[in-house]
Amino acid sequence: MTSRFPDAGAVGVGGFVRDDTPTPEVDRREAVMASLAGTVRELVDATIRTTVADDEVHRVRDELAALVDRLRAAQLPGPAGIRYNSEMRAWNWGNAVVGAANAIAPPLDVVHGPSGCHADVVLGAAYEGPPGLVHGGVSAMLLDHIMGVTASAMRRTTFTGTLTMRYRRGTPLGPLRLEASIVREEGRKVFVVASISDADGVTVEADGVFIQPAGTPTADG
Amino acid sequence: MTSRFPDAGAVGVGGFVRDDTPTPEVDRREAVMASLAGTVRELVDATIRTTVADDEVHRVRDELAALVDRLRAAQLPGPAGIRYNSEMRAWNWGNAVVGAANAIAPPLDVVHGPSGCHADVVLGAAYEGPPGLVHGGVSAMLLDHIMGVTASAMRRTTFTGTLTMRYRRGTPLGPLRLEASIVREEGRKVFVVASISDADGVTVEADGVFIQPAGTPTADG
Repeated sequence: MTSRFPDAGAVGVGGFVRDDTPTPEVDRREAVMASLAGTVRELVDATIRTTVADDEVHRVRDELAALVDRLRAAQLPGPAGIRYNSEMRAWNWGNAVVGAANAIAPPLDVVHGPSGCHADVVLGAAYEGPPGLVHGGVSAMLLDHIMGVTASAMRRTTFTGTLTMRYRRGTPLGPLRLEASIVREEGRKVFVVASISDADGVTVEADGVFIQPAGTPTADG
Repeated sequence: MTSRFPDAGAVGVGGFVRDDTPTPEVDRREAVMASLAGTVRELVDATIRTTVADDEVHRVRDELAALVDRLRAAQLPGPAGIRYNSEMRAWNWGNAVVGAANAIAPPLDVVHGPSGCHADVVLGAAYEGPPGLVHGGVSAMLLDHIMGVTASAMRRTTFTGTLTMRYRRGTPLGPLRLEASIVREEGRKVFVVASISDADGVTVEADGVFIQPAGTPTADG
């Protein structure tokens, strides 16, 4: 699935929320949320790896529950969705892969280049599947995201049609690079290839077909 | 009883760690870890949705950092891996999809039946992609996992070879069902199909080829 910045014509529809917070305030709040989420990511890792005694775990849990209550003193009624203001600054802090406020997201920092996208990421204990290796489903999740943003190219809406992963070997936890590029377009279909690599080369390859909804502009009209 | 867990005598072989903690103590510690992780999941959700003032967010973050330090007072040197004891009780509390101690995992509770596996799960704000919908990559992650355990059928080792997802429509956040079954086996290849459904039917379909490593028993010898 591809999340993107809405066209002016899409204003107020499809779950995108118009929010006229001035851009400097959005930027400031984003930094505050990212700082909190960074510490929550540390907590996720510490929770997996801790070997402290049971009674200490229970005490930490109880103090944690009190912090949850403080954050819930004022909150959105549901998921964060995607917001944008009148300057077309958009933010999706809750996104599972790139959301600044989502501790599940590594978060992936996708860099858009002339021939595609890439992202460097370091995956720790929270992303494990087989011992010492990235969970194959996590690889699929990250590839789906970078392929989606590559297909939409920050200028159009696309939805994932099909996605195929080929696992070449285990992907070790640690520093990894994702790369994705468009190989061709046919009507409303955008064909994308992608990979995950460690220092020794490619571990997972993927290809996907992304669809532009009917009624939106396409490369060949 | 405040003994640390796991025992210092644990020995690793191929990433799987032999750990002769008695099964009742493993069960007890698992419940302790799951209780903490449950509260961390609440925190992940609250962090995404909170609208409390910046100052309060910073105060919560600082108190949270102190709790992280307390959990890190004694911890595993790296990812949790997979452990098993002499009774062949195995535990992978750090797994990204099913780990009891991993707040990234929903966690998925996979039920093994005579004709395949299924899992009922409720996905909240932390799993969002497009507004109100499950991130397509999260769908891929969960499908990869349930297909893998279906292929291995709790009695053999299999690795994901290829995996193809077909996105039929957006998957809404909320209650969902995953189903997976083996359609055929050829030599060391196991062919699996799977789906995600909401109350209105299938949203994502998948098929995958899983490979049994050379030298392990296969269905046709």
